[in-house]
Amino acid sequence: MHLKNDLLIRAATGQPVSRIPVWLMRQAGRILPQYRAVRERLSGFVELVRTPELAAEVTIQPVDILEVDAAIIFSDILVIPEAMGLPYEMVEKKGPYFPSTIKTMEQVNELRIADASSDLHYVLDAIKMVKSAINGRVPLIGFAGAPWTVFAYMIEGSGSKTFSKARRMLYQYPELSHKLLDKITQSTINYVKAQVEAGADLIQIFDSWAGILPKAHYETYSLPYIAKICQAVEDVPTTVFAKGAYFSFSEIAHLPCDTIGLDWQSDITEARSITGGNKTLQGNLDPCVLYASFEDITRHTKEMVEQFGSQRYIANLGHGVYPDTKPDAVKCFIDAVKNYH
Amino acid sequence: MHLKNDLLIRAATGQPVSRIPVWLMRQAGRILPQYRAVRERLSGFVELVRTPELAAEVTIQPVDILEVDAAIIFSDILVIPEAMGLPYEMVEKKGPYFPSTIKTMEQVNELRIADASSDLHYVLDAIKMVKSAINGRVPLIGFAGAPWTVFAYMIEGSGSKTFSKARRMLYQYPELSHKLLDKITQSTINYVKAQVEAGADLIQIFDSWAGILPKAHYETYSLPYIAKICQAVEDVPTTVFAKGAYFSFSEIAHLPCDTIGLDWQSDITEARSITGGNKTLQGNLDPCVLYASFEDITRHTKEMVEQFGSQRYIANLGHGVYPDTKPDAVKCFIDAVKNYH
Repeated sequence: MHLKNDLLIRAATGQPVSRIPVWLMRQAGRILPQYRAVRERLSGFVELVRTPELAAEVTIQPVDILEVDAAIIFSDILVIPEAMGLPYEMVEKKGPYFPSTIKTMEQVNELRIADASSDLHYVLDAIKMVKSAINGRVPLIGFAGAPWTVFAYMIEGSGSKTFSKARRMLYQYPELSHKLLDKITQSTINYVKAQVEAGADLIQIFDSWAGILPKAHYETYSLPYIAKICQAVEDVPTTVFAKGAYFSFSEIAHLPCDTIGLDWQSDITEARSITGGNKTLQGNLDPCVLYASFEDITRHTKEMVEQFGSQRYIANLGHGVYPDTKPDAVKCFIDAVKNYH
Repeated sequence: MHLKNDLLIRAATGQPVSRIPVWLMRQAGRILPQYRAVRERLSGFVELVRTPELAAEVTIQPVDILEVDAAIIFSDILVIPEAMGLPYEMVEKKGPYFPSTIKTMEQVNELRIADASSDLHYVLDAIKMVKSAINGRVPLIGFAGAPWTVFAYMIEGSGSKTFSKARRMLYQYPELSHKLLDKITQSTINYVKAQVEAGADLIQIFDSWAGILPKAHYETYSLPYIAKICQAVEDVPTTVFAKGAYFSFSEIAHLPCDTIGLDWQSDITEARSITGGNKTLQGNLDPCVLYASFEDITRHTKEMVEQFGSQRYIANLGHGVYPDTKPDAVKCFIDAVKNYH
């Protein structure tokens, strides 16, 4: 399908753009009253993820309301463990919780490789509905968690400040760890390929817990698996967002991906210098800037864009937008990017 | 008082050492059954901090049991807000909680500058007791939180994944922020000077939440205040541990301190290259290594020490030891350092 606004794809693939594309991580979600209205009709977050009509509706909301340059499919990185046979719940105000976690090689052997067309059809259905409804107005981003981050939840069973159970596994049982990471990777490859087939125009890989690994472990247990996923994606560009992994930035710069997402602690000038002209960069405004006055939001956004430059750049926050952010503040950020020249 | 084992002080001040000194962050605490026995006699953590005889007892335990090369006074970084007029509680398994938090300039104005000799006499008493009891066997480390980290708790009111309320304050109310940071800094200077007077042989500043600030904010709202504290400490060496602040490592390397603590994600070779021969480095074994086999603990420790080298180096973990770590695993780490040559 022809894209009327292809700024995101042009920027991601290094083609010249007439202005900088902008979207926000977690743009489909609690910041919008229209999202909360949909969410209140359901028993929980997981039900929303599993109901294609409604997942499609909330995916499109920020395109209509905030006028971002991309939609991102409303879903969760933990649909993968579920599709492999390890279900999760989302506990209100607490986050994900796995009633059962992976402790033994026997459990790893019992997990299946996710078959996207059956196990994850609800995401693919939502993607098709969005594509049909937005009719090429903007590109649609598909996504998945990086294998290490998905692994971390499958071992730990919930969010954690240290993920010490998951990290402990890497030291105690390297063989089990690689076997599980491999199964997650195969499942994720099936999943992202199916997303592209269903219509996703770009795939983003979220390595949310990259930053808690020592460099040697990150380059053994995370990067090679991300590289396999990037290599497997055909026809559309890929973005990797490895939060907190400064220690391995030079290695991330060599991933077979098109765009690298930066968190708000990252040094823009250094990232440009390391990636040269070979990668597009995405990010990285501190989400807390959106609590400031409109004048300050505009000023901080301009200063950021100035550092990135207008080409090979996709404007975004350095992390998901915080739930209590005012939609008007988000609009102010988006306008500041769009009006930059 | 003459120190029989002065390895820590020699290493911190750049003098040659016959072997590498070793201690662990959080060595006095839940890893030791002897600590848990003391703790169970009391109603809570804060009571233990405020009872000098018992705080002294648990401070000395790891010197006797683990044979570390330094004691560190058992206390908490949040005694400072309490001494300024903002009390906290320690909620079991949850962490610190402030019934009241700082929201307005009026509240900042009402806070007092801590007078260590009255508001924090219980810490000073504990230091004197430890010094008398260990009789120069090893040095005693005093400590305080970095002003930014203490500020973060005073605004946020508890631990947080994002500390978005505290970070928001920096964008919304820079003047209030500087005023509060200044008061915390003055209080901390009084406090660390009093610790030295009471007998502390080295002062460590913990900036536990350094890593959540963007570089520009870290260098505006944290580093200058840490520098003031380091400058105010006379007669004993100082160590700064700024967890996660990779983005500002070059600036940290210029602090007027003697030793820089590294977390387990830090690149040792890079840290050595940036600091040259001007600073001692401390750290940085991943605390999760202590869950591995003794063989692996020994191997990982040797590999780490090999990278740091034996001079201008203090062996430690890259974060506090995790509470469920076995004391024998800790001993294995300590022995691996002591036997290195």
